[in-house]
Amino acid sequence: MLDLTLLGSGGGMPMPNRHLSSMIIGYEGRKILIDCGEGTQVAMRKVRSGFRAIDIICISHYHGDHIFGLPGLLSTIGNSDRKKPITIIGPVGLKKIMEGLLVSHAYLPYKINLIEAAKRDIGFRMSSGILQENIEDEKNEIIFSTLKLNHSSPCLGYSLYLPRNPKFYPEKAIDSGIPKQMWSKLQNGEEVHHEGKIYKPDMVLGEDRKGIKLSFVTDTRPTDTIPAFIEGSDLFVCEGTYGDNADIKKAIKNKHMTFKEAADLANEGKVKELLLTHFSPAMDNPSIFGSNARSIFKNTILGYDGYKRILNYD
Amino acid sequence: MLDLTLLGSGGGMPMPNRHLSSMIIGYEGRKILIDCGEGTQVAMRKVRSGFRAIDIICISHYHGDHIFGLPGLLSTIGNSDRKKPITIIGPVGLKKIMEGLLVSHAYLPYKINLIEAAKRDIGFRMSSGILQENIEDEKNEIIFSTLKLNHSSPCLGYSLYLPRNPKFYPEKAIDSGIPKQMWSKLQNGEEVHHEGKIYKPDMVLGEDRKGIKLSFVTDTRPTDTIPAFIEGSDLFVCEGTYGDNADIKKAIKNKHMTFKEAADLANEGKVKELLLTHFSPAMDNPSIFGSNARSIFKNTILGYDGYKRILNYD
Repeated sequence: MLDLTLLGSGGGMPMPNRHLSSMIIGYEGRKILIDCGEGTQVAMRKVRSGFRAIDIICISHYHGDHIFGLPGLLSTIGNSDRKKPITIIGPVGLKKIMEGLLVSHAYLPYKINLIEAAKRDIGFRMSSGILQENIEDEKNEIIFSTLKLNHSSPCLGYSLYLPRNPKFYPEKAIDSGIPKQMWSKLQNGEEVHHEGKIYKPDMVLGEDRKGIKLSFVTDTRPTDTIPAFIEGSDLFVCEGTYGDNADIKKAIKNKHMTFKEAADLANEGKVKELLLTHFSPAMDNPSIFGSNARSIFKNTILGYDGYKRILNYD
Repeated sequence: MLDLTLLGSGGGMPMPNRHLSSMIIGYEGRKILIDCGEGTQVAMRKVRSGFRAIDIICISHYHGDHIFGLPGLLSTIGNSDRKKPITIIGPVGLKKIMEGLLVSHAYLPYKINLIEAAKRDIGFRMSSGILQENIEDEKNEIIFSTLKLNHSSPCLGYSLYLPRNPKFYPEKAIDSGIPKQMWSKLQNGEEVHHEGKIYKPDMVLGEDRKGIKLSFVTDTRPTDTIPAFIEGSDLFVCEGTYGDNADIKKAIKNKHMTFKEAADLANEGKVKELLLTHFSPAMDNPSIFGSNARSIFKNTILGYDGYKRILNYD
């Protein structure tokens, strides 16, 4: 299970009535933040999210509306008595950006691990009580994938995948005469060698089951590779900078998307639901343009600050 | 005349109900900002202050609650079509801090002039429609003074002084037979040579008159030099991190002040009014401690976000 809260639904500039696009995801008591515009820590306080449990921060790109909340948030996390390391993932240039943004931080009580421009999937699992990169090639609890987007600055889309164990059939284990003390290892997909015999997981497990998939795509023009990247997402969080179809020229010029374009991607990617966010500060009321997306992709949700959601296995 | 707005009255961390300590000052349509914590640009929008007229930014010190709003604000000023230069004043280290904070700014459409650790007064006057440092040694419209404070990071107090011309007496000019076309120069304090005669300003002017003085002191412990620095201020804006006298140990440890200590300084400095600000996030309602200041210095105002004020010549 994942829970997620849209901290802010705005793009460009922070406004009194709309925080900048940022999302916080909860998993087993730990937290993952995606993007961190100015004011993100205030948005977190508004939804009563604590700071200390943030283990992973994903940055889409280095425009201010996605990163200027980082220096303050990292300070506040330090004040929350955090001691364990935090992982930050971002496009090429992450090290330099972090050195700059942390210029006034004399000291942070925790280490920051940077993963720059990941070209491979990155597995995370719970280790010492926090989500850490799984470098031991054991079973991953969450797999992060990234995709190069098409924006005016190097930009990454993210998807998070929570694999699901196949169903365990105790009756199969009993039929095969497998001792009970081996059941949990087999259930976890491990092969067991015992008294000269080899027990394999498929002896007790059903077919593969789909996990939970969440994807986050902002800021970008539509690209050919996005549909495959987001395919089958339970929730596709996507920028919808412009609601009005007539703003397509602005969208092309500023390398953003209209609601319609986001909905087209949702359709092509066969996602379950689309959550629109990153609204232009010039768009006071995104809901008047909702039909521009819904006429193409019915299950469209217009994001708002504080929107909460739980994603469960089917 | 000066007008001022307290943008935020909080210290430490930005909170949903309290922005960080920052003040914006208006003079002849131009603006001066003192300190810029995260969220300052949102606080400016709330009080309907535009961005383009900001000519001078004074930074007290480089703790996050005083500077993390700068990267975003400078971007937003850039988006407001500002082309003319901006002056930023701050303690030693300003250049390095600004390089760091601007790491992700590919381009700003205006130049930034840095004045680091000013050891002298800095005069400003209107030039090309904006307030600029007066390097021609002509008449200053606003004089900035700085004072080293006692905080856990190099920190400056600021005072702004608007000199006032002595009163002009036309009857004296007539009595002395001074031609009318010379009156305005004399009124502005300039000596005039005409047909072999020398006309001096004191021939037509009255005694010196006190200007407007505004002082801003945060973050610091009380020091011996503060009273003389703030002396005679029309308004003394001072940190009051802790309201409760019992928090004096915290104040000493964290190099801040209690309300009582700020009021003692206001008394010693013979200021007209004291405006308390930079309240600890732990202090929900500063007003319950107001008497701790007012029992020592009667004209104490407890700051709040959006507090506005006009300072006029006497």
